[in-house]
Amino acid sequence: MGAASGIVTLTTDFGTSDTYVGEMKGAILGRFRGATIVDLCHAVRPQDVRHGAFLLGGAWEAFPEGTVHLAVVDPGVGTSRRLLAASARGHWFVGPDNGLLWPIVSGDPAARTWSLDASQLRRGVASNTFHGRDILGPAAAYLADGGDPDALGRCLGEMVRLDGLEAIPDGDGFRAEVIHVDRFGNLVTNLRAPRLAGRPRDRWEVRLGEISLRGLARTYGEQPSGTLIALEGSNGWLEVAVVDGDAAGVLGLGPGSVAAVRPIG
Amino acid sequence: MGAASGIVTLTTDFGTSDTYVGEMKGAILGRFRGATIVDLCHAVRPQDVRHGAFLLGGAWEAFPEGTVHLAVVDPGVGTSRRLLAASARGHWFVGPDNGLLWPIVSGDPAARTWSLDASQLRRGVASNTFHGRDILGPAAAYLADGGDPDALGRCLGEMVRLDGLEAIPDGDGFRAEVIHVDRFGNLVTNLRAPRLAGRPRDRWEVRLGEISLRGLARTYGEQPSGTLIALEGSNGWLEVAVVDGDAAGVLGLGPGSVAAVRPIG
Amino acid sequence: MGAASGIVTLTTDFGTSDTYVGEMKGAILGRFRGATIVDLCHAVRPQDVRHGAFLLGGAWEAFPEGTVHLAVVDPGVGTSRRLLAASARGHWFVGPDNGLLWPIVSGDPAARTWSLDASQLRRGVASNTFHGRDILGPAAAYLADGGDPDALGRCLGEMVRLDGLEAIPDGDGFRAEVIHVDRFGNLVTNLRAPRLAGRPRDRWEVRLGEISLRGLARTYGEQPSGTLIALEGSNGWLEVAVVDGDAAGVLGLGPGSVAAVRPIG
Repeated sequence: MGAASGIVTLTTDFGTSDTYVGEMKGAILGRFRGATIVDLCHAVRPQDVRHGAFLLGGAWEAFPEGTVHLAVVDPGVGTSRRLLAASARGHWFVGPDNGLLWPIVSGDPAARTWSLDASQLRRGVASNTFHGRDILGPAAAYLADGGDPDALGRCLGEMVRLDGLEAIPDGDGFRAEVIHVDRFGNLVTNLRAPRLAGRPRDRWEVRLGEISLRGLARTYGEQPSGTLIALEGSNGWLEVAVVDGDAAGVLGLGPGSVAAVRPIG
Repeated sequence: MGAASGIVTLTTDFGTSDTYVGEMKGAILGRFRGATIVDLCHAVRPQDVRHGAFLLGGAWEAFPEGTVHLAVVDPGVGTSRRLLAASARGHWFVGPDNGLLWPIVSGDPAARTWSLDASQLRRGVASNTFHGRDILGPAAAYLADGGDPDALGRCLGEMVRLDGLEAIPDGDGFRAEVIHVDRFGNLVTNLRAPRLAGRPRDRWEVRLGEISLRGLARTYGEQPSGTLIALEGSNGWLEVAVVDGDAAGVLGLGPGSVAAVRPIG
Repeated sequence: MGAASGIVTLTTDFGTSDTYVGEMKGAILGRFRGATIVDLCHAVRPQDVRHGAFLLGGAWEAFPEGTVHLAVVDPGVGTSRRLLAASARGHWFVGPDNGLLWPIVSGDPAARTWSLDASQLRRGVASNTFHGRDILGPAAAYLADGGDPDALGRCLGEMVRLDGLEAIPDGDGFRAEVIHVDRFGNLVTNLRAPRLAGRPRDRWEVRLGEISLRGLARTYGEQPSGTLIALEGSNGWLEVAVVDGDAAGVLGLGPGSVAAVRPIG
């Protein structure tokens, strides 16, 4: 693990209509005044751990090594679920042990994990309902400031796994699922596009709802406005888009819709 | 008053669909390049001073001492209403003198207040419609940079009061009101939960719309999904929630709904 | 061109429901750790270059000289449209060459422009779909860090123009258009209010939909609640507002609605 970058990213289901995100930033700055805090996304669907894992999983690599990624999607707040810190793939990750961080951390065989039980790190008296502000934020700040993770707690051992994040192989193809609709109405699936690399782009077919798309496009701009296309999005997931348009609106589809991806010929 | 922390928080009714917040940040950075600016909340209901006071009141304590809290909910912009700065409870507060800052500042008998009338602090020619950017932002930046408040103006004297923020005693109980609906659909009332500390949790009843809840829960996670509960939220206000669900949606209630909180037995 | 301020502002149509903005910030911080990044607006209507130009055009001057303004409204991503950097009016501007930056840059006869073709500045392998993160963000960071623009590419030459941003003269008056609805429901037109300075405020009439407003108000607060007024907004554009209310909702109007502004008497 290299030096801390001093950056803390935030991924939550808090939205922006409350002061929750701001309070968490106050707690971070109270522990480490020099932190650079970046909002990654606060629009995780409420308490949807898989959606949070998906969004963080596609974005954390845009940051410098040594960045601390604090993620809070925490339906179990106030119960006995554990809180964790992890060092993996050259970055730090802090959040509840409910599967949210599992896809990233489990991808690094050299990852190390800690269970956050050091009460001295907590902010005053921790509330029962807002561990993001009272425990996780200060722990993230401590790591961003170059703190020793062994002071945060003991080795976590097994993390809670997250199932169903990635598309399932189905015959020669895949059974994928729309997991996110972005600002432009693009229907983003849980199929990593590199899994389709074994065949040329024009030898795949994507079926989604009533439509069937033959071949994968390379970019939005290569087809006329209004064309429905399937392509690899900027984070590597297969998505279905309408050029200059809103695929989710046009097709009436959203999270949970099933996409069958099959070889042609 | 201790040293300035260099942090400026922003609480406004500006939303995020315009450049207003960004322009205010530009004005702050133009005056004090080293400021750390944190969005506390920009989703105050338009021109709802009481909602703004509620949101700021629950969040400012999450920040380090010496932080400047700039709040702009200002239906009177361009009229003769005054603008103020205040030193209270170890923090700085800047905003219009329309009650927005009164609940916090009036809670500190040693608070000091200034009327912002130092024209030399203003940004170029102040517009008639955007004092947040042209006067309040630069004043907040000046204080965050450790500036002398006496250079900002004279003693304000009496602040404009804000009525109706807190729940009213009613017999042995309280007549509260939903003042905020958070991202999760939790119905947050204007009753500070510590006011219920005189009786055990199971000896209070909360009536809201058609429903009646016996006893106060400790946390969201201790009841099954879908259960309606009343509990103390993370900022100390009594709220009504559905575990893993959306109480505002389920009950069809929102800001202004009345909650009767009564002792049992 | 003076020294870089180290500030990077962001104006995009990315919204805030995705990680796109956060990833772009990661790319900027990866190139220049000391950047101060400010969100100007991410609510540009999807792929509406004119709306983006309007929002940035009203806000950039709130920032200190030497600030880098990164704007991404880019329907042509992945096609042959060029990316540019410009030095104009004491600030830096970075974005696609599709008209988005033309109104600002063309206003400075001494402006200089560069075509971003220096592949060594790009982030790893640039994606086909997210040049904001992979090319524009790093270029903006490089300029904010005081980098030499000549290392970014060659002189751009002619920029792509943007037509239809400003209201058209029509007889003695103007044919304007609502180009933006702000958070408060104010209908902001594309007519710069200083163009009306040749006559007193009470000698102009604004017709919009079914209504006709005689005279221009000075500020929101000088009329009773509920009054429909026309006035110069904080960024200098003529707008139609309801005092303490929502003009867009009351009138049922929005972007594209035509406003006729005519002299009286």
